[in-house]
Amino acid sequence: MKKKKPWGGRFSKPTEKTVEEFTESISFDRRLYKYDIEGSIAHARMLGKIGILKKNEAVAIVKGLEGIRKEMDDGRFSFSVELEDIHMNIEKRLIDKIGPAGAKLHTARSRNDQVALDIRLYLRDVIKEIIGCTSEFKSVLVDKARADIAVIIPGYTHLQPAQPVLFSHYLLAYWEMLERDRERFTDCLKRVNTMPLGSGAIAGTSFPVDREYVALLLGFDRITKNSMDAVSDRDFIIEFLSACAILGMHLSRLSEDLIIWSSQEFGFIELPDAFCTGSSMMPQKKNPDVLELVRGKTGRLYGNLLSLLTTMKGLPLTYNRDMQEDKEPLFDSVDTLTSILRLLTELISGIIVKKEAASTAASQGYMWATDVADYLVEKGVPFRTAHEITGKLVGYCIQSGKGIKDIEISWLKRFSDRFEKDIYDIITPEAGVNMRRVAGGTATEMVLKRIREIEEDDL
Amino acid sequence: MKKKKPWGGRFSKPTEKTVEEFTESISFDRRLYKYDIEGSIAHARMLGKIGILKKNEAVAIVKGLEGIRKEMDDGRFSFSVELEDIHMNIEKRLIDKIGPAGAKLHTARSRNDQVALDIRLYLRDVIKEIIGCTSEFKSVLVDKARADIAVIIPGYTHLQPAQPVLFSHYLLAYWEMLERDRERFTDCLKRVNTMPLGSGAIAGTSFPVDREYVALLLGFDRITKNSMDAVSDRDFIIEFLSACAILGMHLSRLSEDLIIWSSQEFGFIELPDAFCTGSSMMPQKKNPDVLELVRGKTGRLYGNLLSLLTTMKGLPLTYNRDMQEDKEPLFDSVDTLTSILRLLTELISGIIVKKEAASTAASQGYMWATDVADYLVEKGVPFRTAHEITGKLVGYCIQSGKGIKDIEISWLKRFSDRFEKDIYDIITPEAGVNMRRVAGGTATEMVLKRIREIEEDDL
Amino acid sequence: MKKKKPWGGRFSKPTEKTVEEFTESISFDRRLYKYDIEGSIAHARMLGKIGILKKNEAVAIVKGLEGIRKEMDDGRFSFSVELEDIHMNIEKRLIDKIGPAGAKLHTARSRNDQVALDIRLYLRDVIKEIIGCTSEFKSVLVDKARADIAVIIPGYTHLQPAQPVLFSHYLLAYWEMLERDRERFTDCLKRVNTMPLGSGAIAGTSFPVDREYVALLLGFDRITKNSMDAVSDRDFIIEFLSACAILGMHLSRLSEDLIIWSSQEFGFIELPDAFCTGSSMMPQKKNPDVLELVRGKTGRLYGNLLSLLTTMKGLPLTYNRDMQEDKEPLFDSVDTLTSILRLLTELISGIIVKKEAASTAASQGYMWATDVADYLVEKGVPFRTAHEITGKLVGYCIQSGKGIKDIEISWLKRFSDRFEKDIYDIITPEAGVNMRRVAGGTATEMVLKRIREIEEDDL
Amino acid sequence: MKKKKPWGGRFSKPTEKTVEEFTESISFDRRLYKYDIEGSIAHARMLGKIGILKKNEAVAIVKGLEGIRKEMDDGRFSFSVELEDIHMNIEKRLIDKIGPAGAKLHTARSRNDQVALDIRLYLRDVIKEIIGCTSEFKSVLVDKARADIAVIIPGYTHLQPAQPVLFSHYLLAYWEMLERDRERFTDCLKRVNTMPLGSGAIAGTSFPVDREYVALLLGFDRITKNSMDAVSDRDFIIEFLSACAILGMHLSRLSEDLIIWSSQEFGFIELPDAFCTGSSMMPQKKNPDVLELVRGKTGRLYGNLLSLLTTMKGLPLTYNRDMQEDKEPLFDSVDTLTSILRLLTELISGIIVKKEAASTAASQGYMWATDVADYLVEKGVPFRTAHEITGKLVGYCIQSGKGIKDIEISWLKRFSDRFEKDIYDIITPEAGVNMRRVAGGTATEMVLKRIREIEEDDL
Repeated sequence: MKKKKPWGGRFSKPTEKTVEEFTESISFDRRLYKYDIEGSIAHARMLGKIGILKKNEAVAIVKGLEGIRKEMDDGRFSFSVELEDIHMNIEKRLIDKIGPAGAKLHTARSRNDQVALDIRLYLRDVIKEIIGCTSEFKSVLVDKARADIAVIIPGYTHLQPAQPVLFSHYLLAYWEMLERDRERFTDCLKRVNTMPLGSGAIAGTSFPVDREYVALLLGFDRITKNSMDAVSDRDFIIEFLSACAILGMHLSRLSEDLIIWSSQEFGFIELPDAFCTGSSMMPQKKNPDVLELVRGKTGRLYGNLLSLLTTMKGLPLTYNRDMQEDKEPLFDSVDTLTSILRLLTELISGIIVKKEAASTAASQGYMWATDVADYLVEKGVPFRTAHEITGKLVGYCIQSGKGIKDIEISWLKRFSDRFEKDIYDIITPEAGVNMRRVAGGTATEMVLKRIREIEEDDL
Repeated sequence: MKKKKPWGGRFSKPTEKTVEEFTESISFDRRLYKYDIEGSIAHARMLGKIGILKKNEAVAIVKGLEGIRKEMDDGRFSFSVELEDIHMNIEKRLIDKIGPAGAKLHTARSRNDQVALDIRLYLRDVIKEIIGCTSEFKSVLVDKARADIAVIIPGYTHLQPAQPVLFSHYLLAYWEMLERDRERFTDCLKRVNTMPLGSGAIAGTSFPVDREYVALLLGFDRITKNSMDAVSDRDFIIEFLSACAILGMHLSRLSEDLIIWSSQEFGFIELPDAFCTGSSMMPQKKNPDVLELVRGKTGRLYGNLLSLLTTMKGLPLTYNRDMQEDKEPLFDSVDTLTSILRLLTELISGIIVKKEAASTAASQGYMWATDVADYLVEKGVPFRTAHEITGKLVGYCIQSGKGIKDIEISWLKRFSDRFEKDIYDIITPEAGVNMRRVAGGTATEMVLKRIREIEEDDL
Repeated sequence: MKKKKPWGGRFSKPTEKTVEEFTESISFDRRLYKYDIEGSIAHARMLGKIGILKKNEAVAIVKGLEGIRKEMDDGRFSFSVELEDIHMNIEKRLIDKIGPAGAKLHTARSRNDQVALDIRLYLRDVIKEIIGCTSEFKSVLVDKARADIAVIIPGYTHLQPAQPVLFSHYLLAYWEMLERDRERFTDCLKRVNTMPLGSGAIAGTSFPVDREYVALLLGFDRITKNSMDAVSDRDFIIEFLSACAILGMHLSRLSEDLIIWSSQEFGFIELPDAFCTGSSMMPQKKNPDVLELVRGKTGRLYGNLLSLLTTMKGLPLTYNRDMQEDKEPLFDSVDTLTSILRLLTELISGIIVKKEAASTAASQGYMWATDVADYLVEKGVPFRTAHEITGKLVGYCIQSGKGIKDIEISWLKRFSDRFEKDIYDIITPEAGVNMRRVAGGTATEMVLKRIREIEEDDL
Repeated sequence: MKKKKPWGGRFSKPTEKTVEEFTESISFDRRLYKYDIEGSIAHARMLGKIGILKKNEAVAIVKGLEGIRKEMDDGRFSFSVELEDIHMNIEKRLIDKIGPAGAKLHTARSRNDQVALDIRLYLRDVIKEIIGCTSEFKSVLVDKARADIAVIIPGYTHLQPAQPVLFSHYLLAYWEMLERDRERFTDCLKRVNTMPLGSGAIAGTSFPVDREYVALLLGFDRITKNSMDAVSDRDFIIEFLSACAILGMHLSRLSEDLIIWSSQEFGFIELPDAFCTGSSMMPQKKNPDVLELVRGKTGRLYGNLLSLLTTMKGLPLTYNRDMQEDKEPLFDSVDTLTSILRLLTELISGIIVKKEAASTAASQGYMWATDVADYLVEKGVPFRTAHEITGKLVGYCIQSGKGIKDIEISWLKRFSDRFEKDIYDIITPEAGVNMRRVAGGTATEMVLKRIREIEEDDL
């Protein structure tokens, strides 16, 4: 009959094969093998403890699973698409190795709660690793901030110079973002670190399993409280993908800044060679490829989040096969983020601020204007009048091409007789920076104070 | 000259007007007025405390602001697009009311830190409100679960009947989801409840402001630690929008279930009339409009999240005008979610499960198969053999059109001699439910236990 | 120095290696090899034609490239990550094979216009393939519609039965959607089928290349008209991904319908076994896994679209390395969609509508109400009155548990004296279907007419 | 009973009211009034033509509708939320005005096909308007390109100067993008311009309506071919939103470029004052607010697209109330895009390129390197050797701080004896530009040729 299908010409494979390939997950969920085995070992121990498995059966299963893990660690395991997923691949091999007792491992368990367990174990590890990466990144930001404490750069709003700031202050802005990211991952971890096994396919199990014991063995904080929820919950993955998207957004901003600042026109940042591409013919050229890719990869971090949100939209309870689509976006965001974080950590530590160029940039743009107005206010000039006077003074500087520091005090007094010689003390970038002694401000002492706080918290 | 613009024909308004309309935010940020005024009052008090404002100035400002708040509360305030945003509308009015002293309010402040403060104050309130709504929703779920404890429905995987479950168990699955949502909003609140004022436009302020005092007055837990971060951070909004999207996803699933279950074919749920539309001509028809809209509005909750993520992608530090685009998606998600939560709370409490229809449904579909296999395993039949036997038995039922309860024990023994009369005890929906006495399982005693836990936590 | 890096502990690989792995694209762009070689051959021929390559050089290059293609076809080519991308892998091998003349191939070309060419060649093929798949799908829909022309099912709005319709009419609704999808891909193809080579890195080339000749050799409709645009344009991929997302949405709706209709409660559709999973133990169970995965994969189709949209947002002109992120979402959507389309094509042709169950379903739900009201209107009863009468009649049927066909004419006349015996002709599902003889309506003759139209267009 | 609701405290409004407010659409779909009336008039005429309406009834209806339109145009119509949507508001008013005949208008029509008609009529107008806006924008780009033909700027890849290009060439790159946008909208229009009326609620109508006549009256190209598809199709809106998102992406890139180029560091673009904000106190400061908002609004254009895609995902056929969520994202994207396009059209025409600064920028960065290597190749130096020589020469320039034009020919010959005096002719920005005489290249003659082509096509 198959021969007569009107559309048959294109199909070289019989249906069973194409369906099998379409529905298999072993090509990507094999990545969970360590966690599947870890979970199965705990399950076997518990079944042994409550007497569903005989002692020797439990021992044989655990030993068998450990052997399989070794095979997989060593790359000697041959995965089969026919066996569909990581669970079946392992179960089948276990039965091959230890005989029918292997089949008993699946007692009081379903693939629905098993896969939920595996992802939670995996994600728990992954979150810890990402938190580790952010910590290292933050640590380098602080080290760099301490080392470059003397460097002043222009601070921008609207990509227009607004106020001179310490480069260290800028770096610590990212420290704060990364710290929030760490908090978000830590919060997410609470919801990941919950033990679903024992929920069965949907309704729980009729075997007298000891769920708390499994949780204990596997280091979970708590067990899930509703079996229907437990097998259909993917919140923790979405929440994780959302935290990844926000972190990716932060890094896209950092990349954007560094790309612009290392342009020939801004030119006050030098990126480490290893992170750029050049050309033997055009040795002056240094394309910030790594930063561009970091910025570009924001796309996939957002895309992965929306992918899973879309998949879960409107799904009836409880488990549906749609949910198999949770893994690939997850793995992709994990890989993307860990590699980005490691590369940026190294990149940041290798950045050189061209101090002179930065200082020149920070001296331009009349960034002293706010401070001069504030000066006048403090000398008793009404707020609005102070602003008007400053406006005229800036206008004069632009027209005459002079810097304010080149204008004599006698001439300054033509703008306002409140100007005294101390005005010259506030119009340098250094003064602009250091007068901002407010908590969270850019003054050197405040930035150093913040560095100390961070370092002390870290001990 | 304007007359000769080649494209001029279409523009009836001069540029200034169109630009003004394009850049204004007063049409939506007026919604923040209460918070803008609350923040300004605290700022004025602080300025008074540190002596930048004279006592009488501070008093006048506070009084002026309170007056403006009253005008706005009463709808007597006339907002001006020319004044662009809520901050300028209020400042201008303040100066009108109390004279030049009003202008001093803006000392040591910038619109960049001011708007950050306003949104944080607003969002703090909103999150509390949404948490309140989820609590009420959860409370109704528990009440309903207690009231309907005797109702059994089919539990579905793949939209196929998998196991009979208590309707209450199903309701409590949503309780768990909503509880996680509450946790996420609570976690988000930690990051919202941080005081940014004093960060100035970008670098902090040179005035000796007392940021901790402002935080105290406004009930903030902590102050922001880096001025550049403080004025360019919108994480807390994105995180909030993400929590909204996840909650919306939950509700889309609930809606989907109820829409399907109240279809004429499933037919074991009756929705309250007030939440459906019908037709005088077709009185049998009951369209679940509210649930459909809830499901449909997932679109805007996801869209709002993506919108702000996109806007923030690749933005150079610090403040950029792009960030004005943060408010409309925020307001829209807030409005959407609060109205959805309130309606669903009422709707859920009005649902009637048609007990008989549900029970019939829960008796069909051979959902006893797993339990029969487990029965045989417990009687000593090897796992695989037990499955085979059960398969044959189900096959026989299908072919013969009989239910298992209608098959005599002698006939059952032809399938396996391990079958005893106690088999009839496990094949009813009630038995299927109540044998799942595991923590988180659907057994009546476990569900009641969970209800008590929840109620006790709530005291 | 590397030894002393504070974060060095985690990095087992030197920077160069990690950067190389981060920036490489050969792991995925090798998929473009056929197109890269095809483009290079055309480029070499053109360079030969205009005299930049000597005849024998051009011949050697073409021969060399053909040899490399053979190596790749046969899986004998060894790809190198160090050589970063498919272009460099091929170029290096070419030089190895034919000596320095190979290096001349890159004259008047840049990787920027080369990769644009490759993707366009690839996408042109892919679009044709997808159009082919949709055509086959549409063809099966029509065949199925013709074969099942006698089958009536309930038509749903709000998942409530609204009007009996032909199953064939339902199938043809998807034919229309797929036809629009085909149109969209065809429209997209116009913008894909434009030849970018000759645009160089950004500004064009100073060599007197013959771009029209290259376009001719490669079968392009036209050449790009602006070099800066040509190297930074990825519209055609986004447009393609958008068309994929819409098509995916259609298929998610089809899947949803079939999942619901093949549930035990609706039960008027039987899915072919090969596309479901069952269980030896529960032979009655048939999980619609393929359909669920199709529905779930909408997530990645949407995610891929948003991924590239995000990447391209706010990118300065012209080429930026961010754009390397265009390929993986593209490949993923292509693979997803082609496999979905092929599977659904087979699945649809194997669906069995349980005619009796469908017919019963179509007889229920008082779907005759509109028609009865229209009947009265045609008999001269005012519109509103007709609606009121019908409402009362339906109410009576519900209360009495009677079908309208079981009510005698004398009794019917109590509701309205306009009822005549011909009323019984319009209240069957068949009548409900066949009275809708409007163009695009569900009447059998109209559906058959549409089938003929489609078949004739296809000749 | 309502008094005892546990959550009742918060609800000040009775259910009916809150449900009404939740489900109403009149607050936004009133915008469609013109189209609803236009469609109804055509429907009435057709009903008159086929005799379902008497002549005088049809006349009365048309006249009544025209009167209502006038009331709405004049702002005298009082919309009612109780009447839910624009259709019911108009129908109710019609009956009030002309009596029971008004009710007959709804014969052979359903709100399902009516709203589909309304949106299509609306979108047809909107697309024409947006195409008009893009045409004006493109026209200004060409005018500006012609006017500024003598201006050379650096062309960037990776935000690094790569090759000098004409500013006009840059502008025309956007012309090409906008032209593709126009094509996409035009293609979308084909699918919008299809007439759905006559599809009824789902299955067509049993009245002998003349759908082609309605299409003719309303200027549609064709009628829909399947009633189930017609009432559940929202593809045309999604496709439109996708075209908007791509156009928005283009404009975000333009904005990004102009923001960077008008920074003080790049400084070769001056934005018109009217599109920036400044400060009286800091007259040098010019924040590119309009461009930033344009860039930021990409977020909502993407968000709106995702919103509707999400809503439509997995919806069963046919009409579901979820689909009411189609309108707000549509209206928002329309408003956003039309205002952006108009503003940018004016902004572009007001840009001043600081010719000298641009020229200086275009002279820097050793952008001549490729051309020097090509020069050597043409003089017979092998490709790789030419690249090596050029690399050394650039290295020498960097080290010595010299420009190539300042190096005497005798010294140049030390790098290669193939250098002749004509080398000085190719190393200027002008030469770099004008030697790229390929189709689509940046040479002045090619750009002027393209301008002429465009202008001629436009006649």
